[in-house]
Amino acid sequence: MLTAGGKRVRPLLTALAAGPDAPSDHWLPAACAVELLHTFTLVHDDIMDNAASRRGRPTTHVAYGVNTAILSGDVIIALATESLARTTSPTVHFMLEEFGLAFRRVCEGQALDKEFELRDDLTVEEYLHMIDLKTSKVLELAAVLGALAVESSHKEDLRAFAHHLGLAFQISDDLLDLTADQAAFGKTIGGDIVEGKRTLLFVCATEHYSRMNVQQRALMDRIRDHAATAEDVPLARELFSTLGVLTSAERIAKQETDRAKAALGRVPVSEARQHLEVFCDRLLGRSS
Amino acid sequence: MLTAGGKRVRPLLTALAAGPDAPSDHWLPAACAVELLHTFTLVHDDIMDNAASRRGRPTTHVAYGVNTAILSGDVIIALATESLARTTSPTVHFMLEEFGLAFRRVCEGQALDKEFELRDDLTVEEYLHMIDLKTSKVLELAAVLGALAVESSHKEDLRAFAHHLGLAFQISDDLLDLTADQAAFGKTIGGDIVEGKRTLLFVCATEHYSRMNVQQRALMDRIRDHAATAEDVPLARELFSTLGVLTSAERIAKQETDRAKAALGRVPVSEARQHLEVFCDRLLGRSS
Repeated sequence: MLTAGGKRVRPLLTALAAGPDAPSDHWLPAACAVELLHTFTLVHDDIMDNAASRRGRPTTHVAYGVNTAILSGDVIIALATESLARTTSPTVHFMLEEFGLAFRRVCEGQALDKEFELRDDLTVEEYLHMIDLKTSKVLELAAVLGALAVESSHKEDLRAFAHHLGLAFQISDDLLDLTADQAAFGKTIGGDIVEGKRTLLFVCATEHYSRMNVQQRALMDRIRDHAATAEDVPLARELFSTLGVLTSAERIAKQETDRAKAALGRVPVSEARQHLEVFCDRLLGRSS
Repeated sequence: MLTAGGKRVRPLLTALAAGPDAPSDHWLPAACAVELLHTFTLVHDDIMDNAASRRGRPTTHVAYGVNTAILSGDVIIALATESLARTTSPTVHFMLEEFGLAFRRVCEGQALDKEFELRDDLTVEEYLHMIDLKTSKVLELAAVLGALAVESSHKEDLRAFAHHLGLAFQISDDLLDLTADQAAFGKTIGGDIVEGKRTLLFVCATEHYSRMNVQQRALMDRIRDHAATAEDVPLARELFSTLGVLTSAERIAKQETDRAKAALGRVPVSEARQHLEVFCDRLLGRSS
């Protein structure tokens, strides 16, 4: 899992938040700790989600069994704490505090995600709270550790930047599942529909359930029950579009992007800030 | 799992190693981190070992399912890092270093333990290495965090004390399974035999396999294949006694106890050292 690639978005965020003049022995061990924390969540989440493949390889539990996957995740998080201990930053105590809290929050986010699979009455607010825990908290940690590594006085602005960026990123990901260009996307279009994932689109759509006709309700039920097929993908796109769900999601993503940029705007103009602006645009635009 | 009791041996060791004059805000968060680390290993090990009960209660995965048990273990270790961050000791950086390494070692010990279940050719040396990782490393952490909390110059003596104490403790535990008085023991006599556990006694006995008769080999095979019954317990005790395995294990336990006491003897006479001597005797004597 550690060598299978991935975009390394989180350690990059730590590096950029620390800035080009930061001594690497202050921020690099922390950046590695964040990537290890993220990788740990993938290994354990894949067990819980019964996922067969990840980053083009069989998942750990498929390749080596559940016991080995549990232990691998445990060792990866142990390596994260060892890596964090290797920073020479005088702020290591604060880094540990932030690390511990983000670590707990991301687990709580996964717990909510699993619980939400069993619920039919999710609200948009609950969904946003879950992705805040599951996606934003680790990005916030990445930014804050970079800020701590250089004892930046803009730590809280960088945290807010990462928080809103995380929400915008996850919502864009939910949208791309139905709106992306297949060639550029790299994943199968409509994968979330077929898997019956509780995305923002699905949660928004369920709010209109009582006003749907029989065919529309049957489609929603198939998605909910993980019984939707590839043929349902264009139907779901049409339904979500008709309901205005795609527009709502785009609006929320835009709002979170604006908030991320506003937070970044409170950081003084610098090379570091310019890099973070490019990082934000590339992450949300998914362009290389 | 956190409220089900247990002997709290590890946080007690941290407290005693820190000594009666140590400020509690230095050592207590570290002591809690060690107990949480230990509890985390129990929750995840119970999944891997398919254990049905622990501390008189159903195990987490039996009560709530495997997914919840994985996540519970994850959250418990997150709480451990949060607790460690709460120490006000100026040595927190070293504490984190020790914590990360012990955390990884204990996972590696569990990995060896699971691997050893599939092997017929274990040596006593390999077994001792496994219990060093699985049992001693967390006890060493407990003692070292106490020493760090008061910046003791006898940190390495306390580490050596805990290391040998851990080995002696685990070997005594293996021995008690066949030699304890049922009423005083609290567990079922011969439980390790019926479960087919790779204990020091079993590993020592397998070294004599080639010289055993047909009945003795059949008994060893039943233990290895987890097919032994309560009726096999007195037979195993007799076989292990005849082979001198009980005597060898007692000799190794005695040797490790002596080494633990020798390490403690290098710590200057103090109230703290007296308490650690009593702790050692009670832990190994299993008297209250």
